[in-house]
Amino acid sequence: MPANRAVVYMGPKKVEVQSVDFPELVDASNGKKIEHGVILKVVATNICGSDQHIYRGRFPMPKGEQLGHEITGEVIEVGRDVLFLKKGDLVSVPFNVACGRCRNCKERHTEICQNVNTEKDCGAYGFNLGGWKGGQSEYHMVPYADFNLLKFPDKDEAMQRIEALTLLSDILPTSFHGCVSAGVKPGSSVYIAGAGPVGRAAAASARLLGAACIIVSDVNPERLALVNNAGYEIIDLTKKTPLPDAVEAILGEREVDCGVDAVGFECHGHGSESDQEKPEQVLNDLMEIVRAGGGMGIPGVYAEGDPKAKTKEAKAGKMLLDFGKSWIKSPSLVAGQAPVMRYNRELMNAILWGRMDYLNDVVATEVISLDDAVESYRIFDEGSPKKFVIDPHGSFSTRKKSAAAEITVKARGQRGPVSSTKA
Amino acid sequence: MPANRAVVYMGPKKVEVQSVDFPELVDASNGKKIEHGVILKVVATNICGSDQHIYRGRFPMPKGEQLGHEITGEVIEVGRDVLFLKKGDLVSVPFNVACGRCRNCKERHTEICQNVNTEKDCGAYGFNLGGWKGGQSEYHMVPYADFNLLKFPDKDEAMQRIEALTLLSDILPTSFHGCVSAGVKPGSSVYIAGAGPVGRAAAASARLLGAACIIVSDVNPERLALVNNAGYEIIDLTKKTPLPDAVEAILGEREVDCGVDAVGFECHGHGSESDQEKPEQVLNDLMEIVRAGGGMGIPGVYAEGDPKAKTKEAKAGKMLLDFGKSWIKSPSLVAGQAPVMRYNRELMNAILWGRMDYLNDVVATEVISLDDAVESYRIFDEGSPKKFVIDPHGSFSTRKKSAAAEITVKARGQRGPVSSTKA
Amino acid sequence: MPANRAVVYMGPKKVEVQSVDFPELVDASNGKKIEHGVILKVVATNICGSDQHIYRGRFPMPKGEQLGHEITGEVIEVGRDVLFLKKGDLVSVPFNVACGRCRNCKERHTEICQNVNTEKDCGAYGFNLGGWKGGQSEYHMVPYADFNLLKFPDKDEAMQRIEALTLLSDILPTSFHGCVSAGVKPGSSVYIAGAGPVGRAAAASARLLGAACIIVSDVNPERLALVNNAGYEIIDLTKKTPLPDAVEAILGEREVDCGVDAVGFECHGHGSESDQEKPEQVLNDLMEIVRAGGGMGIPGVYAEGDPKAKTKEAKAGKMLLDFGKSWIKSPSLVAGQAPVMRYNRELMNAILWGRMDYLNDVVATEVISLDDAVESYRIFDEGSPKKFVIDPHGSFSTRKKSAAAEITVKARGQRGPVSSTKA
Amino acid sequence: MPANRAVVYMGPKKVEVQSVDFPELVDASNGKKIEHGVILKVVATNICGSDQHIYRGRFPMPKGEQLGHEITGEVIEVGRDVLFLKKGDLVSVPFNVACGRCRNCKERHTEICQNVNTEKDCGAYGFNLGGWKGGQSEYHMVPYADFNLLKFPDKDEAMQRIEALTLLSDILPTSFHGCVSAGVKPGSSVYIAGAGPVGRAAAASARLLGAACIIVSDVNPERLALVNNAGYEIIDLTKKTPLPDAVEAILGEREVDCGVDAVGFECHGHGSESDQEKPEQVLNDLMEIVRAGGGMGIPGVYAEGDPKAKTKEAKAGKMLLDFGKSWIKSPSLVAGQAPVMRYNRELMNAILWGRMDYLNDVVATEVISLDDAVESYRIFDEGSPKKFVIDPHGSFSTRKKSAAAEITVKARGQRGPVSSTKA
Repeated sequence: MPANRAVVYMGPKKVEVQSVDFPELVDASNGKKIEHGVILKVVATNICGSDQHIYRGRFPMPKGEQLGHEITGEVIEVGRDVLFLKKGDLVSVPFNVACGRCRNCKERHTEICQNVNTEKDCGAYGFNLGGWKGGQSEYHMVPYADFNLLKFPDKDEAMQRIEALTLLSDILPTSFHGCVSAGVKPGSSVYIAGAGPVGRAAAASARLLGAACIIVSDVNPERLALVNNAGYEIIDLTKKTPLPDAVEAILGEREVDCGVDAVGFECHGHGSESDQEKPEQVLNDLMEIVRAGGGMGIPGVYAEGDPKAKTKEAKAGKMLLDFGKSWIKSPSLVAGQAPVMRYNRELMNAILWGRMDYLNDVVATEVISLDDAVESYRIFDEGSPKKFVIDPHGSFSTRKKSAAAEITVKARGQRGPVSSTKA
Repeated sequence: MPANRAVVYMGPKKVEVQSVDFPELVDASNGKKIEHGVILKVVATNICGSDQHIYRGRFPMPKGEQLGHEITGEVIEVGRDVLFLKKGDLVSVPFNVACGRCRNCKERHTEICQNVNTEKDCGAYGFNLGGWKGGQSEYHMVPYADFNLLKFPDKDEAMQRIEALTLLSDILPTSFHGCVSAGVKPGSSVYIAGAGPVGRAAAASARLLGAACIIVSDVNPERLALVNNAGYEIIDLTKKTPLPDAVEAILGEREVDCGVDAVGFECHGHGSESDQEKPEQVLNDLMEIVRAGGGMGIPGVYAEGDPKAKTKEAKAGKMLLDFGKSWIKSPSLVAGQAPVMRYNRELMNAILWGRMDYLNDVVATEVISLDDAVESYRIFDEGSPKKFVIDPHGSFSTRKKSAAAEITVKARGQRGPVSSTKA
Repeated sequence: MPANRAVVYMGPKKVEVQSVDFPELVDASNGKKIEHGVILKVVATNICGSDQHIYRGRFPMPKGEQLGHEITGEVIEVGRDVLFLKKGDLVSVPFNVACGRCRNCKERHTEICQNVNTEKDCGAYGFNLGGWKGGQSEYHMVPYADFNLLKFPDKDEAMQRIEALTLLSDILPTSFHGCVSAGVKPGSSVYIAGAGPVGRAAAASARLLGAACIIVSDVNPERLALVNNAGYEIIDLTKKTPLPDAVEAILGEREVDCGVDAVGFECHGHGSESDQEKPEQVLNDLMEIVRAGGGMGIPGVYAEGDPKAKTKEAKAGKMLLDFGKSWIKSPSLVAGQAPVMRYNRELMNAILWGRMDYLNDVVATEVISLDDAVESYRIFDEGSPKKFVIDPHGSFSTRKKSAAAEITVKARGQRGPVSSTKA
Repeated sequence: MPANRAVVYMGPKKVEVQSVDFPELVDASNGKKIEHGVILKVVATNICGSDQHIYRGRFPMPKGEQLGHEITGEVIEVGRDVLFLKKGDLVSVPFNVACGRCRNCKERHTEICQNVNTEKDCGAYGFNLGGWKGGQSEYHMVPYADFNLLKFPDKDEAMQRIEALTLLSDILPTSFHGCVSAGVKPGSSVYIAGAGPVGRAAAASARLLGAACIIVSDVNPERLALVNNAGYEIIDLTKKTPLPDAVEAILGEREVDCGVDAVGFECHGHGSESDQEKPEQVLNDLMEIVRAGGGMGIPGVYAEGDPKAKTKEAKAGKMLLDFGKSWIKSPSLVAGQAPVMRYNRELMNAILWGRMDYLNDVVATEVISLDDAVESYRIFDEGSPKKFVIDPHGSFSTRKKSAAAEITVKARGQRGPVSSTKA
C-alpha cells in the first residue's frame, strides 16, 4: 500500500500537510465495507472559499481532519458493486457525496442526499458533513462511484484542459447553479456579489448562459482588477456610491434582472463600512437591486451557527432581511449548495469544445504542489486573486510536456475529415 | 348618469357606505381620457384580508378613499379603443391593474405592471397603488379593459356559479399562485399557514392541484373547525406542541414538501405567544418545516412600512429570518402578489366544469348587501370564519330565483347529445 | 428453493401458465451475479395492453418467454449490494428496468436507460428489451433494486389500497406522463384517444391534475359506457359525426388544450372505417383537434416494425402524418414510454391520502388468480372493459379479511390527536 | 403625404419594385380606423427564406401584394390608442401580427394570435395571413403598436449595430426559438439542418445558448463554407456518408442532444438524391440522429398545401415520418412559427452588449437598396450565401458616417466612471 499525504486542519489559521492513512473502501460512520466505492489517485484538488470558512474557524471542524472537496483523479481501485468504471478512468468528483438511491438523489437534488450523513440530509468531503475524508491529498476514496463520478471521455484531451476541468468538482457548477437559480439567460443583466473564485466563475457562467451585462462587485481591488481585465463590469464597494447608482452608471437602469450571492455570511459592508463584517449585506443588496420579477441565486454559504459572529442573532444564523421592502417586487430566491451532477456533464462539454476558453482567465488558477497548500491557504485568506489548484503528483507538468511533444491529440471540432473542411 | 355608492375608508376601524361619483373613463393620476377602459355595473365585490390591513391602520391609506379590489361585473359602457368587449358582457376583474404593453405584462407579470403607477411597478384598485378607485361600489371603472378582463363564456351559467366565480378576482388565483410557487403538485404534502379566506382557498387550490396531504394551521378555533369539517388536516397553533411534532402526527414525517404563507406580516406566535404579533413567525415556521429541496410560496402580504409595528425593524419591514439554518436545505421561495391573469381563465374552467365544487364549502362565502359591508368589516376583523361577498344590486337573489325557475341552462358535460350518452 | 409458475408466451393468441425456474440474482445477458438485485414474492401483477400487442403477434417475442411487467411484491431475498431495502418490504416495481448510474437515469429518463439492454437504450421486464424476465409469476427478480423500487411506507395500509397501488407499476404513471406531456393542468380541456385501461387511467390522471373537461373516445361501447358512468365525457368513434363537431357538442369549442394518445399503432378508423386498423388515425386526430399552442402526449406504443401491418410503410413504422396542416398551430408533442420513477412516489401519496378514490371505478380492476390469466388474456383481447390484476398468492383476499378483522390500521388523516379534531 | 414604394409579388419568380399607397391606420380586412397603430419610416427590411417560398410559387399569394415581414423602422405617426411610443422612436417589428388581448397573446403565443386574421389563428405581414401589407417598402403600418413593437433604448447606439438588430424581426428569434424548442443549453450537441440564413442564425443562437458542438448541414457548398469559416462544424449532405457516421466523425457519438429544422418542406435528399426535393428528409433525419430523450425544434416551414409538390400526399401537407422508429427514443418536438416577442428583448440586449459579435459573420448580411431587391430575390433563390438587408432610405450609410464622425456614443460597458476602471 502506497503512502498518502493530505492537508490537515489543526485549528484556526493552521493547516499542515501530514502523512495520513491510505484511503480504504470503508464507511467511516459505521466501519462497513464500501463495495460501491473507488480509490482515486488525485490528479487535481483545489482550495475553495469554503475551506477558508473552516480555516478561519467559522465552521465547526474537529482538529486533525483532512480538508478538501474539489477533486479530480484517476481510478486505481474499484469496489465490487462498481460496474461502469474501471481502473485508469479519469474522473471529476462532485463535492456532494450522494447515494443515487434516495428520493432526493432521484429528483436530481444530490446536494441533499438522505443516505450519506446520519445528522442531516447533506454530505460532502472534507467538511463535518457525514465524516467523508477531505481530498486535498494524494489518494482519495469516493463512495457510490458509478453514480457520483463523471468520467472524461478522453484522458489525454482532458489533461490538456485540466486547469479548467478541475473546476467542475465545485466552483464552476456552484456558480453556474447560482446563475441558473437567479434565472440568468441570454440577454440578462446580472449582478454578482463577490469577486472571489466563485464570483469570478459566476461571471464566466453568466457569459456561457448568454447574459448581456455582467457586473461583479467586491471590496478587494486586486480581485476587481482581475475581473475587469477579463472583460466584465465591476463595482468597487469601498466607494460611497449607492449601489443602485453604481448599477445605473453601468447599465442605464437602477436594477438588474438577476442577482447572485457569491459571498455568503462573511460578507462586508459598503463604503465606510467596507472593512466591517455585515452578514446580511449581500442578501439585502440583492433584494434592493434585483428588479421586480427578477431572481436571486444564493450559492454563497450561510451557516446555522457561526461561533465567531458578532451578534447573538448572527451566531445563530439569523439574518435581518429587507423582506418587507422586497415583497412588492415579487422576489424569487433559491439558496443552498449546488447539485453538481445536474450541471457537470454539460459544463465539461462546453469546456472540451472550447466554449469557455475565457474561464481560466477570470478564475486565475495557479497550479501548486501539495506542500505549497499551507502557504496558499494563508495567501488566499489574505485576499489573493488566485484560485489555487493542487497537483499532488506533478501530473500537470508531465502531461503538459507530453502534450507538447505529441500533437496527435486533436482538439474537438478538428477530428475528422468526413465532411469538415476545417482540417 | 346613475347614482353610485361605495365603501369608503374614514380612518382606522372606520368605514362608511357613502354616495360617491359615478365612475368615468378618466385616469385619476393625470386627468386624461381612458379610451381603453370600461364601466362596470358591479355584480359581486368581496371584502379581502388585505382590506383589513387598511381597516386596522396598518397600510397607509388616505381617508375618504373607496375600498375594494375583488370585483365582478357587467360591462355597461365601453371606451372607444376597447375592441373585444361589448355591453352586457359579464367579466371578472383581476385585482392587479395592468397595461398589457410593458415588459412585465408581456412576461405575464401583471402584478408588477410598469405603466399604471407612477411611484412603483404595481397597481391595484382600492389601495394606495396608482390611484385606482376601489370597487366595493355599485359601479366601477376598469382601464385597459381588453387586456385586463376575463369574460365568462355564458352569463346565465356564470350567475349560477357566481359565489365561486367571484373568488377569481383575487383570493383563488392568489392562493393558487401561492401553491404553484411552493411547487404543489399531485402527491405533495402541503402546509398552509393561516385559515383565513386565502388560506382556506389555498387548501382548495392544493386539492385542485392534486396534493395528497393538506394541512392548515391557525390560532382561530372557528376557522380551524371550518377547515377541518371541509376535510383538510389542521394544526391549532395555540397548542404548545412544537410544529414539527404536530406535522409528524398527521403526516408521519416532520417536514412537508411545500409551504404556503397565507397570513403575512400581521401573524401571531405559537402556544403561549399565540396572542402576540410576531411578524417573522410564519416565514420562520416555513423555513423550519419545509423539507430540503421543498418550496415556499408567500402570497401573504409583507409591507415596506408598518406604522403600528412594535419594533423599529418591523416598522421598516425588516424581518429576522432563520436563513442560516435554512440554507443547507436548499430553500426556494417565491413571494409577492399573484399575477391573477396567469391563472384566472383556467380556474374559471375548473369551476364551470364542476371540478371545484368543494371551494365554497371551505371558503364559506356569505352574500351581503352593500350596506352590510360596514358590519362585515367589523366581524371579519374580529376573526369571523366567513368570506363576505357584497351583492350591491341584489343580482344574486334575482338570479337564483330565475335559475330555479328555468332549468334550461344545463351544466357543462350535459350539453349535447352528439355522442354522449350521459344526457 | 420454492417452486415458481408464470404466464408464458407460446405464440400468437396463445399463452400458458407453466412451471418455470425460480428467479436468481443473475444477469440473463451475461450470466453474471447481480448483487444489486432482489427477489420478490409477487403480490400483484397486471395484464397490460402492451402484453396484448405481443399476444396478437404484433411485437416480435420468442416463444417460451415469460410475460408481464406490472409488478408489486414483497422482498424475500436481498443481494449483497442492496443497502436500503430489506426482507419484508412491500414494493412497487416500475416496468422500466434502469441502472440509476447512466446519464439518462441521472436525468430522470429511466425509460431509456443506457446500461440494461445491449441492443438499444431501453429495458423492460417481459418484453424483448434486455432479456429481463416477465413478472406475471409467483416470484420475480429486480436488478438495481435500491434504485428501481418504490417502498410503500406501511404494509398494512398499502394492502388495503393494493388494487389502486398495483397500477403504479405502469398504467397510472404511463397515463399520467401522457397527460403531463400534453400539458394538462388545472382547467385544461383534454381529449384522450382510447378507453382501454391506459385511457381510463388517463382520465383519472387528468382529473388529479385538475383538468376541467375530460373527453375519452373509443369504438368500444362497453368501455365507453364504463368511462361515462365514472363521470367523464365520451365520444363514440363508430358514429359518423366529425371529431371537431363531437368535441364542440361537449366543450363548446372545436379544439381542446391537450391531447393524449392512449391507443398506439393498433388504432382504428372512425365511422364506417371504425372496424379497420388505421395506424395514423389517432396521431392525425390529435393534430386536428388539439388547439394552436396546445400539447400532445403519446404514451400509446408505436413500433419500429409491425410484421402484421397491412402496408409496407406501416410494417416499417412509417406514418403518414398531417404535419403540414398542423405546423401553423405550433404543435408540441412528447412520445415514448413513461419514466415511471418520475411519478410513482407522488401518485402513491395521492392514492394513500385518498385523493384518487375515483381511480378504480374508471379503471375497473378485476382480481384474478394466476391460472385465470390465460382466459383473461383472451377476454381482454376481445375488448373487455376490465383491467385484470393477478393475485398469484391469494394475498388480496387474506389481507382483505385481516383488514376487516382489525380496525387498528387507520386511514391517513386520522392518525393522531395532536391538534386534529377530526378523530 | 409622401410617396411610397414597395417590393410587389407579380407571380412565380417575378417581383417588382412599384409605387404603392402610403400606409394608413386602417384595418385592411374591414376598413376600420386602427387607433392602436403607428406608421413607420422603414430603416431596414430583409428578404427572408419564407419570401422565397412565395417567390417560387409554393405559397398561395395573390399577385400585386407587397412582400416582406422583417422590418425595423422609425415611428412617424401615432394612433390615438398608442400610449407608450412616440414619433422618433426606433423600433423592431416582430413578423407576427398580434393583438396583445386574446388568450394566446396573454400566454406569450403571439405567433397564433386569435384576433388578427379571420381565417386562422395567425397573422403576419406580407403573407396571405390576415391581409397585413408587406414591409419591403419605404413606409409601413404596424397595428397594436404598444404591444407589438420593441423600442431600442438608444437610437444612435442601435444604428451602429443595425445590421445585427435588423435580424430581431424574424430570423434571429426564429432560429433561437428553434434552438430553445430543441432544448439547446450549455454543453449541448446540436444538429442544425440547413445553412440558409435561419440555419446560420441558429448556429449563432446555439452558441449564445452555450452549446458545445454545433453542426450545420446543407447541400450548398458556398453556404457550408461560410458556416465553417465562422467556426462551426459542417456536414455536406451531397456526400454519401450516412448521417450518423458523419455526426460520429465530428462528435464521437452517433447522435446529438438537439436537432433544429431550419429548412422546411422544400428540403432535399442526401447523396445521390441531394438534387431532388424530399419533403420528409429533414424531419426523418432529426428522428434518426437526435438521441433518446433529446429534443427537436422545427421552425422550418411546413404548409397545409403545396401546389407544386410532386405527390398527392405532399400537396396536402402529409408527411411519411419514421415515427415508429423514433417512438422508443422518447422524442419531443416543437414546431411552428416563433413567438418573436418572447425572445426579441433579450436578444437585443445580447447584441447591444456585444455578446453576439459573431452573428453577422455567420449570417453574412449584405445591405442593398430597395431597387436591388429584385436582383437579390433572384440570387437568393439560386442559393446565394447572403442575407439581404434592404435599406430603403439609405439610413445605414448616413448613420455610419455620422457614427464615425462623432465618437461620443460609447459602447455598453464603457459608459461610466462610477466604479469601473475600464474607462
